[in-house]
Amino acid sequence: MNPPAHNPTMLDVAQAAGVSRALVSIVMRDAPGASPATREHVKRIAAQLGYVPDARARALRTQDRPAIGVVFRVDQPFHTALLDSLYGAAEQAHRPVVLSAITAARGEQRALESLISNRCGAVIMLEPHLPPRLLREITRQLPLIAVATSLTDRGIDSVTSDDAMGMTQAINHLTELGHQRIWFAESHNSGGNPERRAAFLAETARMGEKAGTVVEGGDVEGAGARVAKLFLNTQERPTAVACFNDACAAGLQDVLVRAHVRVPQEVSIIGFDDAPLASLPYRELTTIAQDLATLGRTAVELAIKRSQQAAPDAVLRRIPTHLRTRGTTARSIPSTI
Amino acid sequence: MNPPAHNPTMLDVAQAAGVSRALVSIVMRDAPGASPATREHVKRIAAQLGYVPDARARALRTQDRPAIGVVFRVDQPFHTALLDSLYGAAEQAHRPVVLSAITAARGEQRALESLISNRCGAVIMLEPHLPPRLLREITRQLPLIAVATSLTDRGIDSVTSDDAMGMTQAINHLTELGHQRIWFAESHNSGGNPERRAAFLAETARMGEKAGTVVEGGDVEGAGARVAKLFLNTQERPTAVACFNDACAAGLQDVLVRAHVRVPQEVSIIGFDDAPLASLPYRELTTIAQDLATLGRTAVELAIKRSQQAAPDAVLRRIPTHLRTRGTTARSIPSTI
Repeated sequence: MNPPAHNPTMLDVAQAAGVSRALVSIVMRDAPGASPATREHVKRIAAQLGYVPDARARALRTQDRPAIGVVFRVDQPFHTALLDSLYGAAEQAHRPVVLSAITAARGEQRALESLISNRCGAVIMLEPHLPPRLLREITRQLPLIAVATSLTDRGIDSVTSDDAMGMTQAINHLTELGHQRIWFAESHNSGGNPERRAAFLAETARMGEKAGTVVEGGDVEGAGARVAKLFLNTQERPTAVACFNDACAAGLQDVLVRAHVRVPQEVSIIGFDDAPLASLPYRELTTIAQDLATLGRTAVELAIKRSQQAAPDAVLRRIPTHLRTRGTTARSIPSTI
Repeated sequence: MNPPAHNPTMLDVAQAAGVSRALVSIVMRDAPGASPATREHVKRIAAQLGYVPDARARALRTQDRPAIGVVFRVDQPFHTALLDSLYGAAEQAHRPVVLSAITAARGEQRALESLISNRCGAVIMLEPHLPPRLLREITRQLPLIAVATSLTDRGIDSVTSDDAMGMTQAINHLTELGHQRIWFAESHNSGGNPERRAAFLAETARMGEKAGTVVEGGDVEGAGARVAKLFLNTQERPTAVACFNDACAAGLQDVLVRAHVRVPQEVSIIGFDDAPLASLPYRELTTIAQDLATLGRTAVELAIKRSQQAAPDAVLRRIPTHLRTRGTTARSIPSTI
């Protein structure tokens, strides 16, 4: 079979395969209405012709719609989980997505620059750490949306979970269970931490002067392990620990289990994010879920809106959070001291 | 300050900042030789002018060097860890990288198509699952390299770790410790599994008919948890378990710890990959390390070579593995039965 001289179309595939154009469309879209044998036949012919289903046509349709760039961290499950909703929202808007990863050897600035030189029409940055001043300068060239960090007061459009709401849900859950001595294992470099910290202090202050203590945590399992060491070496242990995220909570839980501290009988643990590890059957972390679908969709919508019209002031979109009660929180047992 | 009419160059930045072009270069490359105050000043001026350091110049230099596309899974730490070396190797070759992620809602075929329509010059696929026939058809259009799965016998260039070597290292380590009843928790859908399984059976067969048993595992923590259930419900327990990867080993370890089975005193566990979780201080998994730097560099080199010259036969590059001994393997204690 000789391939057509032009870029093969769905019609070329249909003619070569001896089927209707509509059937080719059904097969290429994986829509119902074709037998497995037909699907295989059509896909084989399409591949032989070099026909690229959907994507190339989509690219033609969207060629005046510049790509949305996304800067994310490969080692943050929260970031990679967000990609799903970002892809979905961009696809609905017929916009291609270009990813640029922050890795051990590739910093945030380089990740951002590669998107700018790629002529993206807008950039979404997950938890940016670059100086807001630098980011603001970039917004003069193209729309830039910060996700999971509010930089609105620094002039950057931002989409975040309502971190204060999330922490308030966590502390209310714990106080309803009777906890009166609670730690917050913060992650002081992470987006959202200032809001979570402030909400933690406000909520626990109402319970009395010594109810709430902020300790150094982090956003990875190893940080949670260090919180566990602190817990084990403290005279006046808390009855509950709210962790910055689920990875930190998992590290804390794992070390306590190994030290024969019973969770939740001796200490309740609550995470943040509802990451996949939180629902593992042996882990069953109580956590605060972020609404990834809405976060991603809102970020894409805002990026597109900004690429169509500039606005004088940076806006903030706050997405509500939800408490997921699982097995690591329970009623506080009154201390015998 | 009025921005220059043309795309600003390093010289424009130097003139506007009142410094030498060499100093701008130092600052933009984060090379030693400038004070923090100077760095800040130069970066501020550069941002005001809309100068994009490095990347745009690189893009100009590389505009006739098409991008290398990479298809990866966001939920596989082994994949995201590989991105680092892929980026590094591509940068050395002055080739841009375009990532395309496989997520919960975005399949492998769509991830691949978006790269093809992006006019990448070559595609590197991490653990491809698409039918080799389809992949082979694509190689008629552009070079396609499979990583972490050997499809060489199906006509696809492949770069993998030497999985047989890795499993042999694992079993030799265990037999040197006196283990005589060993399980392999396989992941039957994963690249590399056929080679690891065959090596496991070959090595354990030499020890006697009942020395080696293959059980159903997987490549995530939850799969390891299921292996643990099997272990706990088995009359004749193995003294050691080799897991398909570290996530599976961690899930096994976590459930055994919770069931008060002592690791490694009662059972040794060995993983594969040397993922970040393997070296967590409370986990200390013995594992088989894959050489990510060499895997990534070799894949990029092969992709570039293939885009310059076609070769009649698909090639296979096998990268050696290394045993990392940590705390989850120990001498087998002779059974009293």
